[in-house]
Amino acid sequence: MSARPLPLRILGTGEYRPVRILDSREFDARWGRSEGWTRRHAGVASRRVAGPDEAASAMAAAAARVALDRAGLAASELDAVLCANSVGEQAIPCTAALVHRRLGLQDSGITAYDVNATCLGFLVALDHAALAIAAGRWKRVLIVAAEVASAGLDPDDPDTAPLFGDGAAAVVVDGGDGDGAPALLAARLETYSAGADFCQVESGGTRIRIHEDPEAYVAGARFRMQGKATYRMAARLLPGFLERLFGDAGCALQDLAAFVPHQASAKALAHLEVALGLPATKLVRVLEDRGNQMAASLPVALNAAVEQGRLQRGDLVALVGSGAGLSFGGAVLRW
Amino acid sequence: MSARPLPLRILGTGEYRPVRILDSREFDARWGRSEGWTRRHAGVASRRVAGPDEAASAMAAAAARVALDRAGLAASELDAVLCANSVGEQAIPCTAALVHRRLGLQDSGITAYDVNATCLGFLVALDHAALAIAAGRWKRVLIVAAEVASAGLDPDDPDTAPLFGDGAAAVVVDGGDGDGAPALLAARLETYSAGADFCQVESGGTRIRIHEDPEAYVAGARFRMQGKATYRMAARLLPGFLERLFGDAGCALQDLAAFVPHQASAKALAHLEVALGLPATKLVRVLEDRGNQMAASLPVALNAAVEQGRLQRGDLVALVGSGAGLSFGGAVLRW
Repeated sequence: MSARPLPLRILGTGEYRPVRILDSREFDARWGRSEGWTRRHAGVASRRVAGPDEAASAMAAAAARVALDRAGLAASELDAVLCANSVGEQAIPCTAALVHRRLGLQDSGITAYDVNATCLGFLVALDHAALAIAAGRWKRVLIVAAEVASAGLDPDDPDTAPLFGDGAAAVVVDGGDGDGAPALLAARLETYSAGADFCQVESGGTRIRIHEDPEAYVAGARFRMQGKATYRMAARLLPGFLERLFGDAGCALQDLAAFVPHQASAKALAHLEVALGLPATKLVRVLEDRGNQMAASLPVALNAAVEQGRLQRGDLVALVGSGAGLSFGGAVLRW
Repeated sequence: MSARPLPLRILGTGEYRPVRILDSREFDARWGRSEGWTRRHAGVASRRVAGPDEAASAMAAAAARVALDRAGLAASELDAVLCANSVGEQAIPCTAALVHRRLGLQDSGITAYDVNATCLGFLVALDHAALAIAAGRWKRVLIVAAEVASAGLDPDDPDTAPLFGDGAAAVVVDGGDGDGAPALLAARLETYSAGADFCQVESGGTRIRIHEDPEAYVAGARFRMQGKATYRMAARLLPGFLERLFGDAGCALQDLAAFVPHQASAKALAHLEVALGLPATKLVRVLEDRGNQMAASLPVALNAAVEQGRLQRGDLVALVGSGAGLSFGGAVLRW
C-alpha cells in the first residue's frame, strides 16, 4: 500500500517502573546455577515485578501522568485514551477504561479503548492516533501500554522466566503546530499466522473454560514460547519487512538518529544489529535492566531514548519489532 | 471534534450461528419457573451456544467466508483483518491472527490485530478501517466479531444467563468506486468510566492470578452486571450522545432507513424506541432468537438488516450501542 506522511508530534513520554527488583542471581540460586548463568542465558541482569498494588491500569496511569506533565497537558485536554497491552488487566471492561478512571476522566466522555497486536500494539495505537488526528477526529491522544508479564510466566522455564519483565510507558501525541515537520512517515504491520502457535498463552480467553476444565485452564495459563522457531521465522522475514517499511518512509536506515527495537531478547537484538549494519550506538537498548516488557517494550525504549537526549526535532527515528501472531511492525517518525 | 465523511462501502456481510440452540424453556425447567417466565424476564426466546469445535476464530472465519463470498473477494485480496471481541479466544496471540490463519492467510503478511471496546469494538474497527482507507493505507478490510459469551456466564444468574448468546459476524469494506456516495458520515465513542464496574469479568487478565489465588480467579471468572445502574446511566447519557452523533453526521434520526442498535436487552431496546421516537419498523431487532452477543451483536444485526433487504445504496443507517466501560458508540453510514 502507498504511504503518506501523517502529521504526528510526540509531546511527552513517560515510564513507570514497578518497585520490586528481581535480580537474575535469584534465578541462579533457584536453579542451582553458578552466579551469572541466568544473566548470560537471558541477556537480562534484572527486571521489575509488579506487586498487588501495581495493576496494569495503575502503572499505565502513573506513566501517563509523567507523559502528560512533560507535555504540559491535563488529562482532561485529551480526546482519546488508547491502551495497547498483550493481556489486559481483566477480561471486561477494556483496560483503557480502567486507566481513564484512574486519570480522573470518569465523567468526561473521552474515548477509551484497547488495541491488541500483542507486543506491537503500541505501533497500531500510534498509527490509529495519527490517522484520526489527520482526519480531524482528534487533537490530542494518550497511548499507554502496561504489562504484567510475571502473571503468566512459568518460574521454572529458563527461556521465559528471566527474559520478561513488568512495566508501563505512555506517550501523548498531537498533530504538531501545522508546519508539517513532526510526522509519522510510515507504519506497517505484517502478520504471518503460520507462526501463531510460536508464542502463546492458551487460557485467558473463551476457548478453554475454567468452569468446565479447570486443569486444562491452569495448564494453559502459562506463556509458552518456541524460541528457535520464532527466531528463525523472524530472521527470514525481517529483511523484506524492513525494506518495505523504509521504502514506504522514503528514507534509509543510515538516515536514522536512533533505531528503537522491541526488546525481544538479547539474541534478537544482536541479530538486528548485524542485519541492519547500524552502529551499536544507534540501537536503543533497555533489555538488560527491564527484560522484554511485551507491548510496553517499545514505548519504554522510546522514553529511554528521549530521556537520554537522543532525539532532536527533525531527527528520524524508527520503532520496529516482532510479536506473537507472528507479526512484524514498524513505524518511522520524523521527530 | 469535527467530523468529515470518510469514503466507506460495505461490500458484504455474513453471520455464523452456532449449531446448538438453547431454548429459554430450559431455564424455566432448571429454575422451576412456569413456562415462558425466562423468555419474558430476559426478552430472549432462544440463543445459540458455541460447542467445543466452535471456537471464536472458527466462527469468525465462517462468517468471514460468507461476507467475502458476497463481496466477490478472496481472502488474499484483503489488506487487513481486524477482530473486535470483548474477550479473545485465548490470551496470546490476538484472535485476529487465529482468524487470519483459518482463512488461509498464514504466509500472506496481511495485517491482523484486535480492537477491544467490549460491545462496541465493531464500531471502532469500522472507524479504523475507514480512516486507513481514506489515508491510502488499505483498500479492503475484513472486520470480524465472534463472541462466546457462554464461557463466562453464571448458569444460575437469571439476569445474565438467559440474556447473552454466542455467535459471529463479519463485514468486508472498501472505499467505494470514487463517486463518494457510500460513506462513514460520523463515528463517535464516548467513555464514562464512572461505570467501569457495572459490567465486568474480573478474571481473565493479569490482576487476579490463577497460580497465586485460584479461588479468587474462579470467583472472578463470571460475568457480573449491575443491570439497573447500567440502564440508569445509559438512559441519562444517551440523549446527549445521540445529539452529538447526529450533529457530526449532519442528518436527523428521521432521515434513517434503518437504526441498528446493539441488542443489549429488551428493556434497553424498548427505551431506545421511546427515546428515539422512531417507528418500531425502523429498529432492527435480533435479540429474541440471538440474545445479546456482545461485540458480535452490532454486525449480526447489520447483517440481518442486509438480509432482510432493508438497506439500499444511498440509504442512511445508524449503528448505536452502549458497552462495558461504560461507553456509548455510534456510526452513521450512507449505504
